[in-house]
Amino acid sequence: MTDNEWHERGDALERVFTFADFSAAFAFLSRVAMLAEKMDHHPEIHNVWNKVTLRLTTHDAGNTVTERDRRLAAAIDRLVA
Amino acid sequence: MTDNEWHERGDALERVFTFADFSAAFAFLSRVAMLAEKMDHHPEIHNVWNKVTLRLTTHDAGNTVTERDRRLAAAIDRLVA
Amino acid sequence: MTDNEWHERGDALERVFTFADFSAAFAFLSRVAMLAEKMDHHPEIHNVWNKVTLRLTTHDAGNTVTERDRRLAAAIDRLVA
Amino acid sequence: MTDNEWHERGDALERVFTFADFSAAFAFLSRVAMLAEKMDHHPEIHNVWNKVTLRLTTHDAGNTVTERDRRLAAAIDRLVA
Repeated sequence: MTDNEWHERGDALERVFTFADFSAAFAFLSRVAMLAEKMDHHPEIHNVWNKVTLRLTTHDAGNTVTERDRRLAAAIDRLVA
Repeated sequence: MTDNEWHERGDALERVFTFADFSAAFAFLSRVAMLAEKMDHHPEIHNVWNKVTLRLTTHDAGNTVTERDRRLAAAIDRLVA
Repeated sequence: MTDNEWHERGDALERVFTFADFSAAFAFLSRVAMLAEKMDHHPEIHNVWNKVTLRLTTHDAGNTVTERDRRLAAAIDRLVA
Repeated sequence: MTDNEWHERGDALERVFTFADFSAAFAFLSRVAMLAEKMDHHPEIHNVWNKVTLRLTTHDAGNTVTERDRRLAAAIDRLVA
């Protein structure tokens, strides 16, 4: 379902997720959206067909990776475990 | 966008929402879903094409209408204000 | 993921789906919504927390079960296979 | 609701949409997702909080802007009209 792990790229955690098709990719995004609202922390989302790239950074902390990003990353990982 | 108000029916708050079509109705439901996860309180959802009926009750309080239902109703109302 | 099969109840095909939680149930509904728009045929949707009940009937055919309902049911089944 | 128009940038039609918050932005994306599945033509999606950028191009036509992109753009415009 997913092709790799979170990487720290510049000032963000980034991970690419690959699904069977757009429908499965968007269903995943709908779960990410619910998590983001629940945790009041929102990823940058990029989607092309069956691929989703998420970037997590904390704007309020000067665009650095903080504990809030790590908690959101862990919660997202549980969706695709 | 909406045709009426919340009514207390039996042990729940209930309101019917009418939209232009299914797409608009489901977009509203996606916002209700995000609110429900954020507030950790979930409505009973019923949808037929452009109509959505939501029922709010608190199972943990023996299926009565509580402050949690009233807060969720108010937040849902803000989506269609 | 799913607890049973489609049953013909009255004038509709009906199936109950049970998921781990609300988030998984709503992600499934988002896929059903995309299918419904694609096939231009929409189920009656009922959701309580982790349970989703779908009812398929063809209004244009006097609320009977038609080939359109059977095609939508088969497409929905592929989502949870 | 929207801050500008479609622009042809390189080999794609691109438009930025700005909403009140993430919830409104994601509800819009859920409608774009349903349209994309219905029309079997999918935009490249980028989202940061209340901003959505959509890019439309036809991969099968060597990444050029075709009539399929223009039809999808027009259908998306109707969602925010």
